[in-house]
Amino acid sequence: MALSDLEAVARNEEGIAAALGVLKQRFGERLQSGASVREQHAHTTTYIPGQPPDAVLFPDTQEEVQEAVRVCAEHRVPIVPYGTGTSLEGHVNAPGGGLSIDTTRMNRVLAVHAEDLDCTVEPGVTRDDLNHHLRDTGLFFPIDPGANASLGGMAATRASGTNAVRYGTMRENVLSLTAVMADGRAVTTARRARKSSAGYDLTRLMVGSEGTLGIITAMTLRLYGIPQAIAGGVCPFPSVEAACQAVIMTIQMGIPVARIEFINALGMRSINAYSKLDYPEGPCLFLEFHGTDAGVQEQSQMFGEIAAEFDGGPFRWTSVAEERTKLWKARHDAYWAGLAMRPGAKALSTDVCVPISRLAECIVETEADIAELGMPAPIVGHVGDGNFHVLVLMDMEDADEVARAEAFVARLNMRAIAMDGTCTGEHGIGQGKMRFLGSEIGPGVDVMRAIKRALDPHNIMNPGKMLVTPGG
Amino acid sequence: MALSDLEAVARNEEGIAAALGVLKQRFGERLQSGASVREQHAHTTTYIPGQPPDAVLFPDTQEEVQEAVRVCAEHRVPIVPYGTGTSLEGHVNAPGGGLSIDTTRMNRVLAVHAEDLDCTVEPGVTRDDLNHHLRDTGLFFPIDPGANASLGGMAATRASGTNAVRYGTMRENVLSLTAVMADGRAVTTARRARKSSAGYDLTRLMVGSEGTLGIITAMTLRLYGIPQAIAGGVCPFPSVEAACQAVIMTIQMGIPVARIEFINALGMRSINAYSKLDYPEGPCLFLEFHGTDAGVQEQSQMFGEIAAEFDGGPFRWTSVAEERTKLWKARHDAYWAGLAMRPGAKALSTDVCVPISRLAECIVETEADIAELGMPAPIVGHVGDGNFHVLVLMDMEDADEVARAEAFVARLNMRAIAMDGTCTGEHGIGQGKMRFLGSEIGPGVDVMRAIKRALDPHNIMNPGKMLVTPGG
Repeated sequence: MALSDLEAVARNEEGIAAALGVLKQRFGERLQSGASVREQHAHTTTYIPGQPPDAVLFPDTQEEVQEAVRVCAEHRVPIVPYGTGTSLEGHVNAPGGGLSIDTTRMNRVLAVHAEDLDCTVEPGVTRDDLNHHLRDTGLFFPIDPGANASLGGMAATRASGTNAVRYGTMRENVLSLTAVMADGRAVTTARRARKSSAGYDLTRLMVGSEGTLGIITAMTLRLYGIPQAIAGGVCPFPSVEAACQAVIMTIQMGIPVARIEFINALGMRSINAYSKLDYPEGPCLFLEFHGTDAGVQEQSQMFGEIAAEFDGGPFRWTSVAEERTKLWKARHDAYWAGLAMRPGAKALSTDVCVPISRLAECIVETEADIAELGMPAPIVGHVGDGNFHVLVLMDMEDADEVARAEAFVARLNMRAIAMDGTCTGEHGIGQGKMRFLGSEIGPGVDVMRAIKRALDPHNIMNPGKMLVTPGG
Repeated sequence: MALSDLEAVARNEEGIAAALGVLKQRFGERLQSGASVREQHAHTTTYIPGQPPDAVLFPDTQEEVQEAVRVCAEHRVPIVPYGTGTSLEGHVNAPGGGLSIDTTRMNRVLAVHAEDLDCTVEPGVTRDDLNHHLRDTGLFFPIDPGANASLGGMAATRASGTNAVRYGTMRENVLSLTAVMADGRAVTTARRARKSSAGYDLTRLMVGSEGTLGIITAMTLRLYGIPQAIAGGVCPFPSVEAACQAVIMTIQMGIPVARIEFINALGMRSINAYSKLDYPEGPCLFLEFHGTDAGVQEQSQMFGEIAAEFDGGPFRWTSVAEERTKLWKARHDAYWAGLAMRPGAKALSTDVCVPISRLAECIVETEADIAELGMPAPIVGHVGDGNFHVLVLMDMEDADEVARAEAFVARLNMRAIAMDGTCTGEHGIGQGKMRFLGSEIGPGVDVMRAIKRALDPHNIMNPGKMLVTPGG
């Protein structure tokens, strides 16, 4: 994606200068405008070119975020929330410059309510930090997008990952949140009850809003008891179709699978090479079951029978922690294993999600498309949800390759949409997928624009993301 | 609640006359304005006085809904969506008159995608209709608010019920919906993928919006495989606290209980009397487990051990269908059993929801409050979610009783809010709870108002509900 393809946001030089002056006086060394810190805050795990902010603020409290937002609002200066910079669609870029608000220092776990299975955290707490904090409680937070992302960023992009099939996504697991809105007001979206019918669902409106409506300063998250037993294993299949049919039957039979991950033949080859393993090099499912000892044994056996029905298997499973860890490390290293297939290449990581009845068709068509592409592009997927990723390994110096990779992603997005799916199951729209939102949602985009205008009339919250010309 | 307490909505006589004239010409006999049909469409299962619309339209299609909304929009005439009239907080009243749009004739199941575990339905399909339609597929739709409500109404009020603890509420189970917005545009909120990160979560914005943003004309709902085995039983406890502690431990241990319902001593007495049963007449939990044969046996045993730990039990459970049916019929008849305690009385059915760590305290304080009230008021609850109902049986002819019952409900709402809970877990705000939304959400109400103004600038969609002076 070239800079010229991104949604332009006019720079308000005068406003930026004035706001940064005020903020510098107020925050001193916690406002940074050196080139390296600015560039670092434009950097995401993406091939989209960086657009650095003019300065980066490191607030300690919600009140400081409110102060900063009020200053930016007064001077009409863009605000770009920043967590760990692991988003994939250019979410932290600053196309019109302005202020990056880095939540790293807001990293306190404010409360753990073990009896209620919830906790309240600041946005800079990462998912590993949280699970480390919870280690003596018997509880855990399940959402696992791969990267050790900040929980604020995960909420803002509606992240999910390998175990969403069992535990849901950030949509289901944020009970309530507090956000500083475009005018500096702090709004708490709900109380701590498990469910509520009181008014519009502001929690879900903010989850997935990608910083375009406000900046999240606290969240109450659902927690789960660590299961008594965990079992898992890898199961090879003769074809993509067979693997997908096994997934469908597993879900349909109500087996409460905790993870059911697909890796295609190329992906398996890359994993074997990278992690020095000897898994079968055809389409495979990686599985995990949570429950009681008897429960995970029953689930594993039932899945083995389903796999056999579709000529898959043998399904070798284990509840030994070490072996499971090895298995999931291999799965989580798929990104690095892919990169290792083409040293020096940059990865374009994209994701789509379709109804699972269309999943096999979508993956097979995409594999055929990849065969024509001339670049390695392994496929991995959270297939219990119909969600899969393609990692296109391209030479960024070769403009033709980049253009072909982008055209491939465009075809993939439109293929998923044509199959009644979405152009992004978990990465978000950011800058990378703005062109596809209209194809997917149609007139719903006008409703989104009306909401954006109502809540951020001057378009200062993460402008140039998600919605093309939100003021229009 | 007196008519004078309800949010006033000015009548636009001229507009109403003009719009009804146009609609009569267009829809003929499908536009009804006789007194009985009008009164019937103000009637809900509530003590709130009826405010009939000026006419009722029975559209057959989304396009007809769009036509009607455009006519009403042009003449600034209120529109009140109507499903089965089983809502509890005055949602279908027409305080400013106008048009009730009755979705009864829009009762088609448009598609069942068995492989994807979803279906697409029109809003007038009731939950029983849907499950009847699904009877040969091995699938079911779990959400069960008691009444055989329309699915459109259930989505609009974010309904839930006895098995939300396992399957979630309408919030989790509407994948996508189509709504006719205030200007007559039809908007589909999402595609059929299980999850999506594409833009604002319009689905969740519309679910629970109580007809104040648009009228739902189609929905795609999640379905589930009918479990291989179902077991259930009733378990007595020595106290409310003991029952609640058992609930907390059950949830914390990750037992995937499908239903865990509380009934207090008075409620148990009313059920025994009404259904000629001989359950213990102290606090009880009604439970149901879904899974494999081995799974439900294991779950039942684990629960029995937990109950014993809190001096509850004996827990007698069965997987025999007939006995389970009897048990759940008794639970579902709790409303009628309550009414039978005081012949001639009207029931004020209210609900709140708190974090489960506060549940025992909230119920015990509420029982003490009821003891002072001088009216019978049994308590039943979906306690796995921290949600409970009080059924106040009052003599509507006695203004003092009505006033005391209302004051009791106000105290209950504020008690739940003070315990970090909500003034309604599943009934919605409607007219009955508008006064409490601000206490619960604070400045978030201004955000709700801004959204309402942006999407319904002339306040024609179900005015006088949820938000006090949305235009202000």
